[in-house]
Amino acid sequence: MSIQTALTQRLGIRNPVLLAPMDVVADARLTSAVSAAGGLGILGGGYGDAEWLTREIARLKETQVRFGIGFITWSLAKQPHLLDLALESAPAAIMLSFGDAAPFAEPVKRSGAALICQVQTLDMARKAVSVGADILVAQGTEAGGHGASRATLTLVPELVDAIGPDVPVVAAGGIADGRGLAAALMLGASGVLMGTRFYATKEAAVAAEAKARVQRATGDETARGLVFDIVRKRVWPVPFTGRCLRNALVERWTGRELELVRHADEEHAKFLAAREAGDFDIAAVIAGEAAGLVRDIPSAREVVERVSRDAEALLDGASQRLRA
Amino acid sequence: MSIQTALTQRLGIRNPVLLAPMDVVADARLTSAVSAAGGLGILGGGYGDAEWLTREIARLKETQVRFGIGFITWSLAKQPHLLDLALESAPAAIMLSFGDAAPFAEPVKRSGAALICQVQTLDMARKAVSVGADILVAQGTEAGGHGASRATLTLVPELVDAIGPDVPVVAAGGIADGRGLAAALMLGASGVLMGTRFYATKEAAVAAEAKARVQRATGDETARGLVFDIVRKRVWPVPFTGRCLRNALVERWTGRELELVRHADEEHAKFLAAREAGDFDIAAVIAGEAAGLVRDIPSAREVVERVSRDAEALLDGASQRLRA
Ligand SMILES: Cc1cc2nc3c(=O)[nH]c(=O)nc-3n(C[C@H](O)[C@H](O)[C@H](O)COP(=O)(O)O)c2cc1C
Ligand SMILES: Cc1cc2nc3c(=O)[nH]c(=O)nc-3n(C[C@H](O)[C@H](O)[C@H](O)COP(=O)(O)O)c2cc1C
Repeated sequence: MSIQTALTQRLGIRNPVLLAPMDVVADARLTSAVSAAGGLGILGGGYGDAEWLTREIARLKETQVRFGIGFITWSLAKQPHLLDLALESAPAAIMLSFGDAAPFAEPVKRSGAALICQVQTLDMARKAVSVGADILVAQGTEAGGHGASRATLTLVPELVDAIGPDVPVVAAGGIADGRGLAAALMLGASGVLMGTRFYATKEAAVAAEAKARVQRATGDETARGLVFDIVRKRVWPVPFTGRCLRNALVERWTGRELELVRHADEEHAKFLAAREAGDFDIAAVIAGEAAGLVRDIPSAREVVERVSRDAEALLDGASQRLRA
Repeated sequence: MSIQTALTQRLGIRNPVLLAPMDVVADARLTSAVSAAGGLGILGGGYGDAEWLTREIARLKETQVRFGIGFITWSLAKQPHLLDLALESAPAAIMLSFGDAAPFAEPVKRSGAALICQVQTLDMARKAVSVGADILVAQGTEAGGHGASRATLTLVPELVDAIGPDVPVVAAGGIADGRGLAAALMLGASGVLMGTRFYATKEAAVAAEAKARVQRATGDETARGLVFDIVRKRVWPVPFTGRCLRNALVERWTGRELELVRHADEEHAKFLAAREAGDFDIAAVIAGEAAGLVRDIPSAREVVERVSRDAEALLDGASQRLRA
């Protein structure tokens, strides 16, 4: 049994599950594991580092699975040649998030890769479709990492209605199990993209302690804000903020961001040292509200299979909730 | 055909749809219309006004439908005798939102009314259950009116897992159509509570222009914040903020709330005048992100029936998404 949607058809995958292109975290190992399990892995090209990208793409090619490559659009705009590097590897898809996809759409389309755009508002969705997006990822505020303020539950059906049936909409933000996938399908989505759930898998390229913190956290223990961007010295353009676990650093500075800006140098140095030392009271654990649904650290294959299987069972039994 | 859940059984209703107890907006007319259509109407007792409550309860009793009565808990605590007034009318349920339900649980339970508690975090949910809540409403940040920061999509399944099967969980925030109800059921909820959708119905006790603005708005045109609470001179306790349509007043003051506090007297006077005059560039239109899914102003009966019917069709056809 498997779930068939416009997404599985468009991408030629068995399960409507995409790996979020988490910067550095979604390396070749995690990406290939998701693809091998029947979803689509999307390499986390993130801010863009030619050396990392070259190495991870080479590793991916060795596994012979199909894969996508994701970029942070406003950062890619500073080094657009990285897109050529990505396209040379003949990816099944290029995913662009956070910024204007227009300058990159044409080369992606010409290469034959599917153009996936992650959007946070109705306007961004319309713009992405107008430049040729083949697939939209509707990202809600509950998501881990950077994002904006709309919630997945309303953004998905509103985009589905606004965009029409030609461009499949994928739900992202807050989904970590079969219930979330089944709910997304009811909302009109053609599949899901998950970050936080895959962060807490065996293959994810993050410290064991960071994964353990995601596993332990409730969904109440994350926050969206600017604190980490300020201490990392990588402040994002409006309207984006970042969601992470609320640790000691976040508790200390939230509501005092302007003061933090004035202490940015000292705090940046402490942050780098903490990251080096694996001190996650200061270093960031990037995760969304779905952390509250993450209770183990399985393989990525197990995640893809469990989420799909549980959603299939819910869909299969849905009509039993009705009585004549 | 109808959807049977722990909620419909517990409350003896045909459709798993509750009317949000919107302060003043959910008067006897709207409340009775929702109950008559097979959901449960919950009178919007709000901050508590004995005269309004006495009158609307008398009207409700005339209609002979079953109904609930809702209160803002922190406000009820200032005039606890209003609960006696409510209980004398033998409501099917008392709904308490925003604050500690403990002082009121015992009289509610003794009266035989179901105790419904609306909660925004895991901690609040555990507390509500510990004082005897019969039904939990899990309210996400996308909701219209006051609320907190968790999103419905993650809060519902996390509460379902934490609380177990004895206390039905109802999803609130961002639901306005059959897709939302079907999604909520997939997440493990036993039904939905809707505010914004019922605000834009014929029966809702608000100005036609306010309803029209909800109908026109996209989901991107709301914001959660403190501006209206400051100009109304009714600032809520932490962690609650209010979500309304983003109008000229919101645009003007968002990010300058401290300055607004210093101008509160003048702005309060202007606000009262605007409310009187029906000027919704200054007066508040209280609505959530679901405004983007509201495209007409039907009767409350039509809403209950359409949402239920569309969800039933989705559940009935869900297994067709599977292939062997
Ligand atoms: C650790 C982490 C890193 C992320 N990095 C990126 C990124 O580099 N590029 C991107 O488009 N999205 C990134 N995201 C956001 C995801 O694309 C996605 O929207 C999000 O993970 C979905 O919500 P979820 O975390 O609830 O599954 C990241 C998310 C996480 C959790
Ligand atoms: C106009 C309006 C007034 C509201 N007033 C109250 C209230 O007095 N008491 C309360 O418990 N909730 C109130 N709420 C919140 C609702 O109970 C509910 O959580 C919310 O409407 C659900 O989200 P939705 O608006 O997306 O349907 C109000 C909501 C709206 C839209």
